[in-house]
Amino acid sequence: MAAAAGLRALGAKGSGWLRRGPWAPLTTGFCSGGPAGIGRPEPGPRPTIARQRDGIRNIVLSDPKRRNALSLAMLKSLQSDILHEAESQDLKVIIISAEGPVFSSGHDLKELTDEQGPDYHAEVFQTCSEVMMLIQNHPVPIIAMVNGLATAAGCQLVASCDIAVASDKSSFATPGVNIGVFCSTPAVALGRAVPRKVALEMLFTGEPISAQEALLHGLLSRVVPEERLEEETMRIARKVASLSRSVLSLGKAAFYRQLAQDLRTAYHLTSQTMVDNLGLPDGQEGVKAFLQKRKPVWSH
Amino acid sequence: MAAAAGLRALGAKGSGWLRRGPWAPLTTGFCSGGPAGIGRPEPGPRPTIARQRDGIRNIVLSDPKRRNALSLAMLKSLQSDILHEAESQDLKVIIISAEGPVFSSGHDLKELTDEQGPDYHAEVFQTCSEVMMLIQNHPVPIIAMVNGLATAAGCQLVASCDIAVASDKSSFATPGVNIGVFCSTPAVALGRAVPRKVALEMLFTGEPISAQEALLHGLLSRVVPEERLEEETMRIARKVASLSRSVLSLGKAAFYRQLAQDLRTAYHLTSQTMVDNLGLPDGQEGVKAFLQKRKPVWSH
Amino acid sequence: MAAAAGLRALGAKGSGWLRRGPWAPLTTGFCSGGPAGIGRPEPGPRPTIARQRDGIRNIVLSDPKRRNALSLAMLKSLQSDILHEAESQDLKVIIISAEGPVFSSGHDLKELTDEQGPDYHAEVFQTCSEVMMLIQNHPVPIIAMVNGLATAAGCQLVASCDIAVASDKSSFATPGVNIGVFCSTPAVALGRAVPRKVALEMLFTGEPISAQEALLHGLLSRVVPEERLEEETMRIARKVASLSRSVLSLGKAAFYRQLAQDLRTAYHLTSQTMVDNLGLPDGQEGVKAFLQKRKPVWSH
Repeated sequence: MAAAAGLRALGAKGSGWLRRGPWAPLTTGFCSGGPAGIGRPEPGPRPTIARQRDGIRNIVLSDPKRRNALSLAMLKSLQSDILHEAESQDLKVIIISAEGPVFSSGHDLKELTDEQGPDYHAEVFQTCSEVMMLIQNHPVPIIAMVNGLATAAGCQLVASCDIAVASDKSSFATPGVNIGVFCSTPAVALGRAVPRKVALEMLFTGEPISAQEALLHGLLSRVVPEERLEEETMRIARKVASLSRSVLSLGKAAFYRQLAQDLRTAYHLTSQTMVDNLGLPDGQEGVKAFLQKRKPVWSH
Repeated sequence: MAAAAGLRALGAKGSGWLRRGPWAPLTTGFCSGGPAGIGRPEPGPRPTIARQRDGIRNIVLSDPKRRNALSLAMLKSLQSDILHEAESQDLKVIIISAEGPVFSSGHDLKELTDEQGPDYHAEVFQTCSEVMMLIQNHPVPIIAMVNGLATAAGCQLVASCDIAVASDKSSFATPGVNIGVFCSTPAVALGRAVPRKVALEMLFTGEPISAQEALLHGLLSRVVPEERLEEETMRIARKVASLSRSVLSLGKAAFYRQLAQDLRTAYHLTSQTMVDNLGLPDGQEGVKAFLQKRKPVWSH
Repeated sequence: MAAAAGLRALGAKGSGWLRRGPWAPLTTGFCSGGPAGIGRPEPGPRPTIARQRDGIRNIVLSDPKRRNALSLAMLKSLQSDILHEAESQDLKVIIISAEGPVFSSGHDLKELTDEQGPDYHAEVFQTCSEVMMLIQNHPVPIIAMVNGLATAAGCQLVASCDIAVASDKSSFATPGVNIGVFCSTPAVALGRAVPRKVALEMLFTGEPISAQEALLHGLLSRVVPEERLEEETMRIARKVASLSRSVLSLGKAAFYRQLAQDLRTAYHLTSQTMVDNLGLPDGQEGVKAFLQKRKPVWSH
């Protein structure tokens, strides 16, 4: 996996509950490219909260006063929480949610003025893109749990997760055109999630679509009433956490890799993945347990 | 933009209302490839009507007696109306609609007999393909407004527009198999708009799908009752026309370019687009206006 | 067509009704790759039944006691029935269905234990992939008719058919994660049929989706009440069988070929297909018949 080298940079063991995490912000060669120091998160409370229990890590965007804007500090905090002990066997699935009525309003516009200049702008978009790609390259499934409005890069974040569950009051938009900034990077994720006409109407008009429309068009995999959002998301997460991490990790990497290939290459690649999967301890344990009509015991 | 060179060949300024247009049919190096003179539109009334007001150009297929067949003359007239002053700042959005109960029945079969021969057939399909690609390469958003039946290349035209709005009585088909001509070129646009099983059932059986099915499967972005079709389409068009043309143009080109790329290349490309966008006068004006809580004033 | 060489290996003429077919299992260089003899179907009743009438071949998975598992024997029998006289003008369309309440449960897990070893596993997946690709490369349309549960490679088989019709009581799942084997090869077909979030929720949780959800997301082209399943599928098949085989064959090959190309290449390729199509006897007959307002008489 392409992400493994970057992920391995992180060392410590998983640690149950984490709140305004004990782990340090990344300096990291993973996310950067710009000159050292630019965009380093300011000291002060981190804009995300992460806690982990029973293999399920909850990362919460926690800056509701600024509508959970994906400032550089927020992006790096999110990146850090996603990357933290990514290789630990204790981590099985990640849920990304948000405090307050706005899931995320996208980039912090104060970071996009001409005072900041093109190099700073480039770092913002590069970091954002790295976070979005990290979600796909990460070894465990990542679920967006949305309860409210997700716009611009906030909509991109939802579109980038492997699975997305939303309450029926949620809505989604790419309104950059209203402020003269076409949502070109959000369009990468959006254009791979929904039919292109739907994507283009959203991008050209900036108008929101409802959760039901988002489900109809493929941006979400599931919509539930608000009062059942957490329960339903946790049900999915617990199911994922009950499975073999090594098997899901192998499968997730193969899924995204084959999707970009022609059919013959895709089958060649995944046939090998199947053989490799059967060679894993958990692959053989699962098949044996099934034939012996007992519950499998994963080694992960 | 790839289209810019071809588009720039056209010169004159925009001119408010146009009816059976004052502009000449294109001779144009853009659409051709065949020997000069073949397929030049016959003298006589042009089969499309174009008028423009407040940045919105309406192009109407106006040959209802022949079910708005996409004859070579119709295709060239449509191409001419789309290309006309494409670079003018006065043009913000194009709507393509049709007179009569049939949006378009596709190619004119009289042009596809063996009397015409393979060179002529090739010119028909090449011109048609150029018009469809022109829609994607054009600097402003192009909306299909459909009220009735769209078949074969008529369905392809709908599928090729950036946005497609239809009345609920509309329907869509690729019935070429009924007359021994598989809709292979329409399948290019259809197969990029709807799931492949839906496309193949349409292509193999020739049977129509309803507007609601077309919406469900991504061929349309919006379906409304017939009496609200124009109002709703104009609402979208006015919204688009109120935005910055330069920003939408940059974004539209980036959208289609990134869609064909792998994820990393797509993000690399669009991150640069975002930086370029912020460097546009309208990009900075939009962000400033937002932070100053005022309406932006676009320079376009 | 890529498949033609392999298909042409088969010789004899079509023969009306076939039951536990008179044709021999393939030795064939088409499906293999593994050492000769491995995986050759055991003697005994074949696990598929094929019959053909009026151009419509029905292939029925007929091992309901083993939930129509896609054992190597089943895969080779299915492959043989699909390939049999594929080039015969008497064959117009294929329907794949199943006996019993399970359409297919996917691979036979007894073939995936570590006693069998990686070479055997590789042959299973390679043969399966060849069957799935054969469906796309086959000269006639292939329809899945599903009445019940389709899981893992069984779901892949549905996703691989050109058209898929199901009863409303059917459901679809990729539950390999439950037994430690991620459905990586089914994901190739599934990921090309439904939005990626839907595919990933199915792959990561193993939970089924209903027929209605499968239709909504593009895995099916049509859902009907159980009592109308056969009637509706046969209606589609009869329509296909009434059309020109040569025209559909040309169009089907072009459809899948163009789908993998960029837009310009796709149009270049299919414009040539259209010209070739008009040069076919059935192409000219169809156009002439239409202009003369009579029914076309296909030569096929």
